[in-house]
Amino acid sequence: MAAYSDDGTNGRRLTEDEIFAAHEGGKLSTGLPFAIHDQRALATAYTPGVAQVSRAIAGDETLAAQYTWANRLVAVVSDGSAVLGLGDIGPRAALPVMEGKSALFKSFAGLDSIPLVLDTDDVDEIVETLVRLRPTFGAVNLEDISAPRCFELEQRVVEALDCPVMHDDQHGTAIVVLAALRGACLTLGRDLARLRIVITGAGAAGVACAKILLAAGVKDVTVLDSRGILHTGRTHLNPIKEGLAAQTNPEGRSGGLSDALVGADALIGVSSALVPEDVVATMKPDGIVFALSNPDPEITPEVAARHAAVVATGRSDYPNQINNVLAFPGLFKGALDADARYISEGMKLAAADAIVSVAAGQLSVDHIVPEALDPRVAPAVAEAVAEAAHRDGIT
Amino acid sequence: MAAYSDDGTNGRRLTEDEIFAAHEGGKLSTGLPFAIHDQRALATAYTPGVAQVSRAIAGDETLAAQYTWANRLVAVVSDGSAVLGLGDIGPRAALPVMEGKSALFKSFAGLDSIPLVLDTDDVDEIVETLVRLRPTFGAVNLEDISAPRCFELEQRVVEALDCPVMHDDQHGTAIVVLAALRGACLTLGRDLARLRIVITGAGAAGVACAKILLAAGVKDVTVLDSRGILHTGRTHLNPIKEGLAAQTNPEGRSGGLSDALVGADALIGVSSALVPEDVVATMKPDGIVFALSNPDPEITPEVAARHAAVVATGRSDYPNQINNVLAFPGLFKGALDADARYISEGMKLAAADAIVSVAAGQLSVDHIVPEALDPRVAPAVAEAVAEAAHRDGIT
Repeated sequence: MAAYSDDGTNGRRLTEDEIFAAHEGGKLSTGLPFAIHDQRALATAYTPGVAQVSRAIAGDETLAAQYTWANRLVAVVSDGSAVLGLGDIGPRAALPVMEGKSALFKSFAGLDSIPLVLDTDDVDEIVETLVRLRPTFGAVNLEDISAPRCFELEQRVVEALDCPVMHDDQHGTAIVVLAALRGACLTLGRDLARLRIVITGAGAAGVACAKILLAAGVKDVTVLDSRGILHTGRTHLNPIKEGLAAQTNPEGRSGGLSDALVGADALIGVSSALVPEDVVATMKPDGIVFALSNPDPEITPEVAARHAAVVATGRSDYPNQINNVLAFPGLFKGALDADARYISEGMKLAAADAIVSVAAGQLSVDHIVPEALDPRVAPAVAEAVAEAAHRDGIT
Repeated sequence: MAAYSDDGTNGRRLTEDEIFAAHEGGKLSTGLPFAIHDQRALATAYTPGVAQVSRAIAGDETLAAQYTWANRLVAVVSDGSAVLGLGDIGPRAALPVMEGKSALFKSFAGLDSIPLVLDTDDVDEIVETLVRLRPTFGAVNLEDISAPRCFELEQRVVEALDCPVMHDDQHGTAIVVLAALRGACLTLGRDLARLRIVITGAGAAGVACAKILLAAGVKDVTVLDSRGILHTGRTHLNPIKEGLAAQTNPEGRSGGLSDALVGADALIGVSSALVPEDVVATMKPDGIVFALSNPDPEITPEVAARHAAVVATGRSDYPNQINNVLAFPGLFKGALDADARYISEGMKLAAADAIVSVAAGQLSVDHIVPEALDPRVAPAVAEAVAEAAHRDGIT
């Protein structure tokens, strides 16, 4: 019986047996808010009573929002093409992750959710399938879809559906990274806008982090992919990276990680490529290192701490866990509460602010964001997101 | 506040307020068999623990059956083209019915279930959508899909998917009708195979009833559509009706209801067209009348009882309610228990036999089938269906 390395439980290791036992039969079930225990309940919930409700909706489709679960149901959608750190393992192997995600929507925000795993990775076919299923759900959380397909897919689904749609690997991560950077800046007395920030990784998370930082007013962001710094002189870039190169790297640096990181204020690692200690040592003093790859961070937190004032990871067995669960449950709840037609940049920024505000009274270098299980986070995020949606007039 | 006419509660009328209150917010929710209450549970159900499970399934896809909910999840699928007696009211207005159906799967057979309502009534597109979603579910209950499209659609989906698929409006109804006819025959001391049976209605239910009766050995079945008796001399029949005309009506009758019903032993009404008393009066004495249209039977049970020994309806406020809920929960449970690749004719016949056998000790002219809520039915049906699946070698 092997033990898993990052158990997330501060010492008491999760065993394989424990994990597999918890997943036996799956992690979701059909819950029945209205129990069908007698003839009267049967006649109410099903025929003949249900005909009244169907007839009413047939006469006024907006009543479906009130008398079905669909309007507030989040579909967690994946083709299994980029699952955790496991890569393209397909829809069946991705399903345990999607079930977990649906369970988190319920646990953290009280939202009902169903996983939909698709036996196609064709963008046209995925969009078409979701359009056909539109009356089934009220929002779409795209999950574990490989880059750069995920960028086109998300945009296409957003355009095709009149409901909140978000690829969480992009924006959930970006929101929590922004929140954590704000928390770090508050702790260190720094100005976020004036940080020089380096992002290693130009996949789903890296691209979204760069975009939200620019939207948040950061002036100097540099992004690296596996071949080095993105700059306007690079050739053979896909359109997404080409766009990023134009918007980032204001000093026009080229080269590799050591060229990017020298004198930088913050490193955001979302690439799984290791970052050597001697390179981190060239950053400005009192810097910020987020080594977010799971289960193995780009640099061990203990090592990073020799050179940085604030260190964060994606792991729960170190301080400052940057976990998407701080963002997506409240974000979708706020969007659905406000009846938002889509999720705007303003709603994402509001979500990040709300996350920091929950931790406000307790900020320290080891506590730049709330704990993943802090029950105050999702309601605060939902309220801020709904407010932003109303403010932006997208409800 | 209006009261609904068929309240299904023997006197205490369901009010509109009561019905709509029960449907508020929908009738389903996400249930969590594994609660995520602390850091350890979070790390087990989601990252990093879930990666172990996904990796295992990636290595051996058959493990998905054990570690996800999909393998035993019934998708209740509809395009909303023939909902109850309401017709083509579309997927949004159909959803309350599908939620009710999913709730019944859970309540009666413990099966998890999700409604999928489709914004297309194109057969090719529905098949294609379900093929793409295949890893999401373990069985498909097609529901409220209009005839004759439902026949082609069911056949196409059965051929495309390697899992149990059934259009309940056809076979659920047919199974319970067969069970009720067997119950009536046992009560009256008649031989099912030698009855002359008239079916009014050649839609989903009528066609399936005719087929299962033929499969059960009934020699003389006559089917009528809105234009009269199906016979081989009729022109402009669709292929389904043409096939039925060839297999039924051995005496080659033509004409209308009065021509069909004179001297008949049993009438099965599944057309919503009214059947006049004077026509029922021409049936053989001690006959059987099933007037199954809801909420208004083809003939009032009190009137039918003047001429027939056994009368049944689809309503719960009369004796002998013929309700699909006696069949579909146990049928799908048995098919999933046996890991059946499809639902065979033998499994359907076994389901009908199991339903009668539950009522065996208590049979009377007012009790030819068990009550809809009889908790013994679904387990008995499931066991018989699983046995039949093993016997027929389709597991």
